[in-house]
Amino acid sequence: MSTICAIATPSGGALGVIRVSGPQAIQATAAIFRPAGPTPLQAKKGSTLSFGSIIDPDTHETIDEVLVSLFRAPHSYTGEDSTEISCHGSAYILQRVLQLLLAQGCTMARPGEYTQRAFMNGKMDLSQAEAVADLIASTTAANHRMAMSQMRGSFSQELRTLRDQLLHITALLELELDFADHEDLEFADRTELQDLAERILNRITQLCNSFRLGNALKRGVPIAIVGETNAGKSTLLNALIGEERALVSHIHGTTRDTVEESITVGDTLIRFIDTAGIRATTDTVEQMGIERTFAKISEAEIVLWLIDSTQALSQFEALRDRLLPACTEKSSLLLLFNKADLLTPDGHTALQQAIDERISPTLTASAVPFSTRILSAQSSADIIQLRQLLTLSLHEMQQATGSAGDVIVSNLRHYEALSQAQASIQRVIAALRTDLSGDFISQDLRECIHHLSDIVGEVTPESVLHTLFQHFCIGK
Amino acid sequence: MSTICAIATPSGGALGVIRVSGPQAIQATAAIFRPAGPTPLQAKKGSTLSFGSIIDPDTHETIDEVLVSLFRAPHSYTGEDSTEISCHGSAYILQRVLQLLLAQGCTMARPGEYTQRAFMNGKMDLSQAEAVADLIASTTAANHRMAMSQMRGSFSQELRTLRDQLLHITALLELELDFADHEDLEFADRTELQDLAERILNRITQLCNSFRLGNALKRGVPIAIVGETNAGKSTLLNALIGEERALVSHIHGTTRDTVEESITVGDTLIRFIDTAGIRATTDTVEQMGIERTFAKISEAEIVLWLIDSTQALSQFEALRDRLLPACTEKSSLLLLFNKADLLTPDGHTALQQAIDERISPTLTASAVPFSTRILSAQSSADIIQLRQLLTLSLHEMQQATGSAGDVIVSNLRHYEALSQAQASIQRVIAALRTDLSGDFISQDLRECIHHLSDIVGEVTPESVLHTLFQHFCIGK
Repeated sequence: MSTICAIATPSGGALGVIRVSGPQAIQATAAIFRPAGPTPLQAKKGSTLSFGSIIDPDTHETIDEVLVSLFRAPHSYTGEDSTEISCHGSAYILQRVLQLLLAQGCTMARPGEYTQRAFMNGKMDLSQAEAVADLIASTTAANHRMAMSQMRGSFSQELRTLRDQLLHITALLELELDFADHEDLEFADRTELQDLAERILNRITQLCNSFRLGNALKRGVPIAIVGETNAGKSTLLNALIGEERALVSHIHGTTRDTVEESITVGDTLIRFIDTAGIRATTDTVEQMGIERTFAKISEAEIVLWLIDSTQALSQFEALRDRLLPACTEKSSLLLLFNKADLLTPDGHTALQQAIDERISPTLTASAVPFSTRILSAQSSADIIQLRQLLTLSLHEMQQATGSAGDVIVSNLRHYEALSQAQASIQRVIAALRTDLSGDFISQDLRECIHHLSDIVGEVTPESVLHTLFQHFCIGK
Repeated sequence: MSTICAIATPSGGALGVIRVSGPQAIQATAAIFRPAGPTPLQAKKGSTLSFGSIIDPDTHETIDEVLVSLFRAPHSYTGEDSTEISCHGSAYILQRVLQLLLAQGCTMARPGEYTQRAFMNGKMDLSQAEAVADLIASTTAANHRMAMSQMRGSFSQELRTLRDQLLHITALLELELDFADHEDLEFADRTELQDLAERILNRITQLCNSFRLGNALKRGVPIAIVGETNAGKSTLLNALIGEERALVSHIHGTTRDTVEESITVGDTLIRFIDTAGIRATTDTVEQMGIERTFAKISEAEIVLWLIDSTQALSQFEALRDRLLPACTEKSSLLLLFNKADLLTPDGHTALQQAIDERISPTLTASAVPFSTRILSAQSSADIIQLRQLLTLSLHEMQQATGSAGDVIVSNLRHYEALSQAQASIQRVIAALRTDLSGDFISQDLRECIHHLSDIVGEVTPESVLHTLFQHFCIGK
């Protein structure tokens, strides 16, 4: 096993940290380190700090005064002997120290190699390792909580429980197979097995469903603003975004396909899906734009339907037959009657009446979860109230997308493995119902176990691991 | 004394470090830290590392899994009880941990406050503290070496030696004053005193002179490229800069007045002074530009005089009477005969002859240290050779600006204090020569001591300290 080194902090701060890990980590560090005290680094205990100087062993030049943290295997992040050299935060110094370590036979760490070694040495399973990258990239309380829970192993624990139950069923079934001659022998009560399999399916399904929420929290909850071209879409968007345009993170590993406007509401990141304005048209090109808008609505969790208050009924009628069916799967549809400032008091009363007597009944009949709100995008009080309404909708979304307790799946690789596990266990249940041979059932059970094990990395091929860790940052 | 905290690393890396220092540092950290092992943080020895979790004490939410470095006074950077919390490098996490510390009664550190406390607690003197900022800002081997030497106290040691010698003279002189009644009593041999004072003056003068080099190394050695408008100045500049346009450091504390092109030659940063092309003109506006160019030449350590080879003699003759007097103080003048690719073989011979017989003798007579080189700015081989010539000139500059051994003064505040010390000791010498009363001499000696003590911060007023440390980065 090689000894790796990397700069683990960006340059430009007061401090800079270099990490070294591997069998030669302590020896390589000691070769370029002159401790201020009498004890040489090699003689120090693990989990101690030593103050001293980094010296170029060839020229005897002092490169920096540093603190060296010493970790002895297996009590380190990677599980190997490790050091962390805390230098002054100068890019020049960090480069020089790195060069000296390379000259001592260390090699440059690949992105994620520290965490990969931690995984290889059993310090964490694969889903925990993946959470490390998510944790570093987390920008809101909601996705920080999700990554932290995953890194601390609550998801892994859940999977282990499921797998143990599956192994129990498998063992019983396979025991029967061993005694296949004795036709009437049945170790496993079929009804009991079926109950257990269905409980497992339920839980896997819950976890699968939580991906919709997990993915939304991780990438930002997708919200579409739709409405006719003159309804005031850009004014509303600008008012919502206001001063606090969300910082797009430049951390390696957080990639967003397109640049979208996003804001933080409460502890949750939301991102607005860009849609073209809709209006009744016979123009082919414009019609295509509208088709694209409807396609984009399908990605949204929440739809804001912006209606010009001065033409409320006509705008509602014009779109309802197309828009309502597109929203049946959504967490919520918010009808915002904009430009309230242009209404006369009578107009306001008439609008409220139209909402109560015509619009709300139609929406209730469509079974789409909805709220209505009369507002002006120009009024900051109205925008504050709209943000509160959005908070409520986000809360409803978390209900609608199904809570899996503490555990929320946010990783596509995990979701895909869970979906395959789900398919396998569904086949098991079908087979149990039709009293199919234990052979087949056992095979599907083993497949289900395989997919769950894939998530924690127990059966994951080297090539997949390699791809997975290369999205980490260097030094982690 | 308050307990301060700050994020000491920029966000966007694998790791982020938060520093806490002050009487409550360990208690405040312990209040938000749950160690993985059985020993509470308060019970740990100094210079040890503890793994565990940062927990919000109100919500019991886990913010991160961290390593805490523990330092007990006086064995820390600041000399106070301190901790360093090494988190995952997420801006969100670092902010949360900082907020928890503030909630525990810590206050945000001001820029440089850690180093200021180290100075206040006698962990380093003022010139060493100033070197910390220089060290962090260092981008080349030359200015790194200079800052490191200063931080390690070689300059302070030098000043202490000088001060001890001055105190020795002062003590002898003041003893005489105490016995003023005994007119013939002379404890201090005047000749001996004068010798010592002159040795001290010599050394102070050496240190003063080294500022020219120190300042050049710190800010980049200033090089002016001059010549007539058509001589190929921009082509040469672009060729020299090539791919390796020097990174302008964005670290707080490194300010450069104007954006200038700079490159690293060998281990030294050089910066090109922008000058307008010169040509014989009667136009007033253009004449003013030329005046500015000559004013800028006065800032340069090295002058590159670019001459079109096809008009070598006429261009040399046109400028020599103005340019040569402006270069007498320079470390070197490099005459570059450009556009050699346009010369015929005969033209080349003629140019060499003109250089040998007309140009070099004139330059030798002017006493300006010079070199000549025929080249083409288009030829990469020529550019490589030019860089070698520049390395040589930089070396000559280091000779010309006077070496003060290991110690090079690079700080304007130090230079000014040294200049005042120089003036005082010169007055002492003059007084000793004219056999002036011991009273006056003693006063000048004490003034000289005061100025030297100011450099290490022994007599520096609070207000000056405040201004000085605010140029540091936060977390240092």
